[in-house]
Amino acid sequence: MPHLHHLWLSPHSRAVRTVLSEKGIEANLTVEPTWQRRPEFLALNPAGDVPVLQDDEGNVLSDTMAICEYLDEMHPASRLLPGTPAERAEVRRLCAWFLQKFQFEVTRHTVEEKVMKRYMELGQANPDALRAGFHNLTYHMDYICYLVDRRFWLAGETFTLADIAAAAQISCLDYLGDIRWEDYPSAKAWYARVKSRPSFRPLLQDRIGGLKPADHYHDPDF
Amino acid sequence: MPHLHHLWLSPHSRAVRTVLSEKGIEANLTVEPTWQRRPEFLALNPAGDVPVLQDDEGNVLSDTMAICEYLDEMHPASRLLPGTPAERAEVRRLCAWFLQKFQFEVTRHTVEEKVMKRYMELGQANPDALRAGFHNLTYHMDYICYLVDRRFWLAGETFTLADIAAAAQISCLDYLGDIRWEDYPSAKAWYARVKSRPSFRPLLQDRIGGLKPADHYHDPDF
Repeated sequence: MPHLHHLWLSPHSRAVRTVLSEKGIEANLTVEPTWQRRPEFLALNPAGDVPVLQDDEGNVLSDTMAICEYLDEMHPASRLLPGTPAERAEVRRLCAWFLQKFQFEVTRHTVEEKVMKRYMELGQANPDALRAGFHNLTYHMDYICYLVDRRFWLAGETFTLADIAAAAQISCLDYLGDIRWEDYPSAKAWYARVKSRPSFRPLLQDRIGGLKPADHYHDPDF
Repeated sequence: MPHLHHLWLSPHSRAVRTVLSEKGIEANLTVEPTWQRRPEFLALNPAGDVPVLQDDEGNVLSDTMAICEYLDEMHPASRLLPGTPAERAEVRRLCAWFLQKFQFEVTRHTVEEKVMKRYMELGQANPDALRAGFHNLTYHMDYICYLVDRRFWLAGETFTLADIAAAAQISCLDYLGDIRWEDYPSAKAWYARVKSRPSFRPLLQDRIGGLKPADHYHDPDF
């Protein structure tokens, strides 16, 4: 069985978990305390971050997009990067948007401040960082609304890796109760569609030790 | 003819220029002053960064990996993401390493401090940033040596997008004379091989206004 090294509130780890689930692949999950920089883990991934996937063929894979593209190529039944080269380029553009830009502008300042600092015993979240992150979040939520006012899913008419990347980020903020859904009805309708997918259910069952999720977190009809 | 919006010392722009050149595609280049956040440019790419490629089919493409994968899919004669899914995963892992991690740890603190601040009239480079960037650079140069001591090219026995991504970064630092090549003989031999490729020559002819390159910059035999 494949083995995924992950962290519970890592959006990148959640994206890979969702892709595995979309492909019908069961995997063992192991929490990796990346901040300890364990030599055994750095030998698997010198970048030192999660997710890392060890598959049944003996491959050790890291970098979220590299893992997701690999899984999509190995299990092509329901493609998550479908369509033409131009359509795939749009999926990849939006994956970069949510995995990199959203991470840098929002998640780093909010989820990581609130959660990672706690595990790393680095003290309280920095209020300036939180303010910046929540300010930036409004632009990203508006962008999701802009996209799904024009398309059924983020990259077009079919569900793709772009939806998984965005929902993985959103789900972490939503766990912490940090999204004012009443301000973003279109994004809310899109996220409800994602939450209804069987592949997304396991994430909605996550309960992280000592950190209770928002009341509506697990509910597809929120 | 395709049209590339770029910046001269943007490693991401240089990666796309090299891919175009590897594929034998001529393109018009336009410098985009991204720091001005021009509405006409934001309409092409709401992320606001370069490179952006407008191709002959009317597609507007952004995000470096999305553009490069698109070009490789559209022009498959000599694949830059060749081989098996696992081999492609290794190419993509290293592309992320150099396009994202190297950019964040090195280029942002060195090239951007030295060059972008000048164009943006933001004053002198921050000496703490420069120090951090050059400190981080040593680890990345060591990693290039580690890889090419075990493989002829960065991701394996064939030239791939991983070599292009890494060389695009290295070329910007080398333009500024910031690499102590005598400390990294294996990386130097690898970079000499990249410099000898016809696709890389145009970058070595770049002369940026008011900024003279290091004497050895253009020379494949440096």
